[in-house]
Amino acid sequence: MIRTEKLEVRTKGENDIINITQKVDSILQKLGAKEGIANLFLQSTTSALTIIEYEEGLLTDFPRTLERLAPKNAPYEHEKAWGDGNAHSHMRSSLIGVSMTVPVIDGRLALGQWQSIVLTEFDVRPRKRTVIVQFVSSSSTE
Amino acid sequence: MIRTEKLEVRTKGENDIINITQKVDSILQKLGAKEGIANLFLQSTTSALTIIEYEEGLLTDFPRTLERLAPKNAPYEHEKAWGDGNAHSHMRSSLIGVSMTVPVIDGRLALGQWQSIVLTEFDVRPRKRTVIVQFVSSSSTE
Amino acid sequence: MIRTEKLEVRTKGENDIINITQKVDSILQKLGAKEGIANLFLQSTTSALTIIEYEEGLLTDFPRTLERLAPKNAPYEHEKAWGDGNAHSHMRSSLIGVSMTVPVIDGRLALGQWQSIVLTEFDVRPRKRTVIVQFVSSSSTE
Repeated sequence: MIRTEKLEVRTKGENDIINITQKVDSILQKLGAKEGIANLFLQSTTSALTIIEYEEGLLTDFPRTLERLAPKNAPYEHEKAWGDGNAHSHMRSSLIGVSMTVPVIDGRLALGQWQSIVLTEFDVRPRKRTVIVQFVSSSSTE
Repeated sequence: MIRTEKLEVRTKGENDIINITQKVDSILQKLGAKEGIANLFLQSTTSALTIIEYEEGLLTDFPRTLERLAPKNAPYEHEKAWGDGNAHSHMRSSLIGVSMTVPVIDGRLALGQWQSIVLTEFDVRPRKRTVIVQFVSSSSTE
Repeated sequence: MIRTEKLEVRTKGENDIINITQKVDSILQKLGAKEGIANLFLQSTTSALTIIEYEEGLLTDFPRTLERLAPKNAPYEHEKAWGDGNAHSHMRSSLIGVSMTVPVIDGRLALGQWQSIVLTEFDVRPRKRTVIVQFVSSSSTE
């Protein structure tokens, strides 16, 4: 059995890191999820999904680390062609990824104690993002 | 219900970035996919799967970004032992990853407007790659 | 049909890279897996799952590459606040990721010839880690 829902998330722009754990959990509860897999997929090329301990220091450190990997002001061919200032955002999205599969046990996301699922905005302006949330469960009496 | 297919992809060597979106979509249509999840898995340690906007500038920028992360000419123990010139290719593959799960809705990959699924070749010579494509759907009347 | 198991892994601390392929394969055999998908999820924010050729040189090269991406001694806000010396471990975990889906064919993980699934410990001390292993298969006579 597979159920598909959409989660809309509004971001404030670059380096906004939004904890979506509870919203995903709410969708699973609405679907009556018990045991299965939650597949999360972000429909974007300038933001990403990852897992992090949602702690203030790390929320500052993570964008700084990404600045080392794909600096905002490095020379990018995409920027020369389009001038929209977000080539680094594309790089970061392709590095981190937009797809994630999380176990569901006893109706809840089976996350570790410190794990939060986050949407990290890399684009340079506020965006409205769509995360597709799918729940796969056993087909029988569950 | 789970169906498993294989997609063979020939690459031209280092930094060849191949858009496999339409080929995966064709497999899903052949399988009669409606709603479910497409699991993609690349059987390789020197190439990777990711999602990117398939735009000429970004296709140049992405390899340059990876050169910053795992430079071709950095000293690598793997290179000292084997001398096959692709230690950086291994690093890049392990960083980006080879596994991805994409929602399928109404028989199509539920990608965002600008998202393309790509196989990025990091190895230093042309290779023949295998992507395993699995489709998981509800078991009933579908 | 979905089955969920847990795999406990003890690590020796920073940069211990543990090949868990055979243990995952054993779980799948215990479950009588034939064709389906293995979903692996590591309940951690300071270690990660990835795929690599399990070769001595690469096992040295990979931590060195991560040191370039998120240096141990860079200034981190997390470190200023908590002083537990593992801010870089958090960064590396969020970059590499903790979730992976691997095809199962004929009862075995459908890995490429050189692919091994590894748990890479980034934390600065030995840890006991939990990997959730789920197997999704067709529901009928399989």
